[in-house]
Amino acid sequence: MRDAYHEELDSIGESLVEMARLVGSAIGRATTAILDTDLKLAESVIAADEKIDDLQRDLEQRAIALLARQQPVATDLRIVVTSLRMSADLERSGDLAQHVAKLARLRFPEAAVPQDLHATILEMGQLAQRLMAKAAEVIITKDIDLALQLEQDDDAIDLLHRALFQHLMDDRWKHGIETAVDVTLLGRYYERFADHAVSVAKRVVYLVTGEHADEIVTAEPVEGA
Amino acid sequence: MRDAYHEELDSIGESLVEMARLVGSAIGRATTAILDTDLKLAESVIAADEKIDDLQRDLEQRAIALLARQQPVATDLRIVVTSLRMSADLERSGDLAQHVAKLARLRFPEAAVPQDLHATILEMGQLAQRLMAKAAEVIITKDIDLALQLEQDDDAIDLLHRALFQHLMDDRWKHGIETAVDVTLLGRYYERFADHAVSVAKRVVYLVTGEHADEIVTAEPVEGA
Repeated sequence: MRDAYHEELDSIGESLVEMARLVGSAIGRATTAILDTDLKLAESVIAADEKIDDLQRDLEQRAIALLARQQPVATDLRIVVTSLRMSADLERSGDLAQHVAKLARLRFPEAAVPQDLHATILEMGQLAQRLMAKAAEVIITKDIDLALQLEQDDDAIDLLHRALFQHLMDDRWKHGIETAVDVTLLGRYYERFADHAVSVAKRVVYLVTGEHADEIVTAEPVEGA
Repeated sequence: MRDAYHEELDSIGESLVEMARLVGSAIGRATTAILDTDLKLAESVIAADEKIDDLQRDLEQRAIALLARQQPVATDLRIVVTSLRMSADLERSGDLAQHVAKLARLRFPEAAVPQDLHATILEMGQLAQRLMAKAAEVIITKDIDLALQLEQDDDAIDLLHRALFQHLMDDRWKHGIETAVDVTLLGRYYERFADHAVSVAKRVVYLVTGEHADEIVTAEPVEGA
């Protein structure tokens, strides 16, 4: 019975990794779509979000069924509850990648991102994708050092985000209000995406150490409960 | 034993209502702070978010301890898991109210919102606050009709959000880029706040009916599991 249980627990972990993989790919492709003004690619990212939503729904069902059937305590209980939270982070990250793709579609055949911001948006997109790839690796390896490294990458995204705003606020901004609004939202999407990737990694830290990487992971261990 | 259990379950429900009350108050006060350029009020909203975070942490601890100690199944299990999700919605709503207050503080002594958008932002703030008050009422009463009514209120927020964008895109926009960026983010904060209030109400619908109000609530019931 315990073996079937741990198999099921492993398969939940595998689904989380699969979700992170899909979501990371989605943000990468959405970034390409918006920079290349590629409507077809944008449409494919938008359509693919359903797969991510389905995966989350399925994962949640299995996690709740596991709670009901196996009634885990202590560490095992923490793993299941934390998995539910991570799947919510990943599902939301998928939505944000979809938002990027929808903005590409909304402005098509115009470009949402002006040429002089291509490099910045490309870098934000690449960092976001890399953060999610690392988050997936953290889920697999439970590597605490790697998890903590994600915070530095997140700082890099925050710096880019700030640079983006400075660019917007610059008196030499010549792309008008609509583009300023688009770029503002775009910056926010990448920043939130990165936050969710960091959150996933921090939840793994909490699982492994029983300690919060910071206040984002809030549940206390129930060891011995 | 079951009585202590249901008492604890009730107290979790009470904490959710308390969180919704604090968060609703926060968005109302943040809106006043940004419209009146009231730094002191903004600071108080920013500081008060800690109380909301503490409440969530405490609620999560109790919910996880309850899972470990009582090992509920079926409906009771659904209630505890759903409560965890609702507390995450409410905690995030608190962050969004705090974002509004932080924008007021960032621009002080300037006004972040130009006069000709005061009425729109006031209405978004009031609607957001009302949505959260209704969400709290739905938690207390489990009133499905009221829960479904929240979606209409959310449509009203979406309309205002769209009107805000149209105003921004209007050729007559004369407030410059910085204000356009601020108003874009502000609109997004209110919209997301409203989404979370609707999400809380939908989760109650799911608890009561076992059916999803829509795809936002994703876990399936585990009746008989």
